[in-house]
Amino acid sequence: MGALDPVKPLPMLAPLVESVNQASQRVSAPSPNPESVVSDPQDHPANALERLSALLADDLAEVNTEIVSRMDSQVALIPQLASYIVGSGGKRLRPLLTLASARLCGHTAKRHIGLAAAVEFIHTATLLHDDVVDESDLRRGKASANEVFGNKPSVLVGDFLFARAFQLMTEDGSIDVLRILSRASAIIAEGEVLQLAAANDLGTNEDIYLDVIGAKTAALFDAACRIGALVADRPAHEEQALADYGANLGIAFQLVDDVLDYSAAQAQLGKAIGDDFREGKVTLPVILAYAAGTETEQAFWRRTVEELDQTPEDLDHALSLMARHGSLDRSIDRARGYSNKAIAALERLPPHPLRETLADIVRFNIGRDY
Amino acid sequence: MGALDPVKPLPMLAPLVESVNQASQRVSAPSPNPESVVSDPQDHPANALERLSALLADDLAEVNTEIVSRMDSQVALIPQLASYIVGSGGKRLRPLLTLASARLCGHTAKRHIGLAAAVEFIHTATLLHDDVVDESDLRRGKASANEVFGNKPSVLVGDFLFARAFQLMTEDGSIDVLRILSRASAIIAEGEVLQLAAANDLGTNEDIYLDVIGAKTAALFDAACRIGALVADRPAHEEQALADYGANLGIAFQLVDDVLDYSAAQAQLGKAIGDDFREGKVTLPVILAYAAGTETEQAFWRRTVEELDQTPEDLDHALSLMARHGSLDRSIDRARGYSNKAIAALERLPPHPLRETLADIVRFNIGRDY
Repeated sequence: MGALDPVKPLPMLAPLVESVNQASQRVSAPSPNPESVVSDPQDHPANALERLSALLADDLAEVNTEIVSRMDSQVALIPQLASYIVGSGGKRLRPLLTLASARLCGHTAKRHIGLAAAVEFIHTATLLHDDVVDESDLRRGKASANEVFGNKPSVLVGDFLFARAFQLMTEDGSIDVLRILSRASAIIAEGEVLQLAAANDLGTNEDIYLDVIGAKTAALFDAACRIGALVADRPAHEEQALADYGANLGIAFQLVDDVLDYSAAQAQLGKAIGDDFREGKVTLPVILAYAAGTETEQAFWRRTVEELDQTPEDLDHALSLMARHGSLDRSIDRARGYSNKAIAALERLPPHPLRETLADIVRFNIGRDY
Repeated sequence: MGALDPVKPLPMLAPLVESVNQASQRVSAPSPNPESVVSDPQDHPANALERLSALLADDLAEVNTEIVSRMDSQVALIPQLASYIVGSGGKRLRPLLTLASARLCGHTAKRHIGLAAAVEFIHTATLLHDDVVDESDLRRGKASANEVFGNKPSVLVGDFLFARAFQLMTEDGSIDVLRILSRASAIIAEGEVLQLAAANDLGTNEDIYLDVIGAKTAALFDAACRIGALVADRPAHEEQALADYGANLGIAFQLVDDVLDYSAAQAQLGKAIGDDFREGKVTLPVILAYAAGTETEQAFWRRTVEELDQTPEDLDHALSLMARHGSLDRSIDRARGYSNKAIAALERLPPHPLRETLADIVRFNIGRDY
C-alpha cells in the first residue's frame, strides 16, 4: 500500500451542495481494501463509516452489548433515558476509532471493547449536557432526551454515564488510559464553557473558534485513537500518529458539522437547518461572513446573532451573505486542510488495511451531507 | 483509650430545639485528646468539626492550595464559578474525613492531599448539578452558583470539576482509589436520579428514602474514609471499619440536614426553613408525618407536597403536624441509630487520638443546628 491520497482542493466558489456532491462521488468510489481484519472482506459499503463498521462488526457488536449492559441500573429512569439517547441512531464513530486503532496496532485481546464503550459513554454524557445547555429539542432528527425526559434527569443521567465510563476504565486497569481520558474529559468541559462564553459574541475569531472545537470535539477523537494504540503497546511515535489523526479528523468533523447546519444539501434532504443561527452560535461560517461583511451586513449579524433579534426571513438572508462571501466553501476548505493532516498522520503508521479505511473516513467526512 | 461512648437516646417527645441544645451541650464538653497528630494540641474548639480542622490544619491548608491550583483553567469562567462555590464557606467535611482516615491509619506521605482535593471536587460538582436540578437560589446562605452565573455554566463547570477529580486520582496512580471513587460517583448519580423520581411522591417510604440518602450522601462519606485507609496500606478489615464509619455518619448527617430544614433552631438563628417543603421533597420528617397522619392530614400533604399547591401558611401547618407526630424527634432518633453504628465501627480500629475526634464528629452532627 503506497502513500495515502490527500483530500484534493475543490473550487472555492462552487456552491456547497455541488462541492459536497463532487466530494461524495469522489470518495465513494470503491477503494482497494485487500483484506478484512475482522469481518467479511466483500462487505464494502460505499459509505466509509459503514464500511468501517462492517469491518469491525464483531467488535462493534461486543461494544454494543457492553454499552447496554453497563447503562443498566436499579433506578429505572437511568436505563430508560440512557437507552433512548445511546440507541438513537448514533454512528458510534468515536468507539469505532478506538476499535480500529487497537486492531490496526495489532491488539488481539479484548481490552478495546470496554474502553470503546467508555469512550461512547463520555460522548453520550456530553451530548446529554450539551442538549440541556443548548436547550435543544432535537438530536439526530428526533426529540432530544431533555425534551422527552426533562432537563433534570438529563443532567443526572449524564453524570451517571460519565461515572460509568470511569468504572469501565478502572476495570481495564490502565492508569495511562485513565490519564488520557480524564484529561480529555476536562478539556471537553473547558471547550464547552469556552463555547458558552463565546456564544452571541461576534468578537469570537477563528482562533478562538478553533480552540473551542479542538477542545469540545477533537480532544475525544484524539483520546479515542490514542488509547487504541496504547492497549496494543505500540511505540510512542505510533500512538502519537494515531492521536494526531484523531485530533485533525475531529476538527474537520466539527467544521463539516457546522457547515451542514447551513447547507443546501441538508435542506434538500428535508432536514432542519439554521439551528446554530437561531441559537446565535458563532461558528466558522458566521465568523468568515462577518469578517468579510460590509457595515450593513455586520449590523445584520449583530442584530441576529448577538441580540438574537430575528425574523423568519433572516436565515435566508444569512445564507445569501454566506454565499456572497463563500463562507461555507471556505469553511470546508479549512476542513480539507485538517483532513490532509489527518491522512498525513496515518502515513507515519505501518501499512494495514484499516489504515486505508481510516483515511477513507477522512474523505467521507468532507463529502458527507448528514 | 477505652470503648467509645455511644450517642445516648434523648426523650422522643422533647421539642427538637431543646433536644438539639442538650445534645450540643453534651458533646461540646472538652473531650480527652491527649496528643495532637498534626497541629497544636492546645487548640481544641468546642465544635468537633473545627477541632478536627485544627488538628489537621497543615494538611487542610495543602488541600486548599491544591484545590485552588487545580480548579484553574485558561477559560476564565471556570475558576470564577468554581472558586465562588468552593470558597463559599463549605466546611470541607469530606476531604477532612480522607485526611483524618489517612493520618489515623499512619499515612506519613502526601498522597492523601490530592485525593482529599479530588473528593471535594466530586462533592462540589454534585452540589453544582444539584442546585441546577433543584432550581435552588441559595446555597450555604448565599446566592447559589446557578443563580449568579446561570444554569448552563453550572452544569459545565460541574463536569470540569468531576473530570479534574479523576485527573487528580490518576496522578496518585492507584487503580483501587479510582475504582472506589468512580463507583461512588455512579452511586451518587443513581441516588440523585432516585431522589428526582421520588420527589412529590408520597408513595416514597422510609426504605426508599434511606436508599436515596445512602447513595446521594453516604456513598461519598464511605469512599472518602476508605481511601484514607487505602493509601496507608492498612488491612482490609480496618479499611472496612472506616468505610462503615463513613457510610453511617453520612446517613446520620443527611438525616440531620433534612430535619434542620424544618427546625425551630434554624428559624431562631434567622435561617430560612422549609425549602424541602416548598420543593415537595419527600424526606423522612414528611414520610413519618404522612404515615401517622389522619385522612385530613394526608390530604394536606398530598395537596402541598405532591401537587405543590401551597399557601404561605402551609409550612406552619406542616410544622404543627410534624410536632403532633414527633416526626422530627423520630428522625433524629433514626440518625442517632446510625451514629451509634458509626461509633461502633471506629471501635474496630486501633486506639488513636483521631479516632476519638472522629467519634466526636458523630456526636457533633447529632447536636448541630446548622
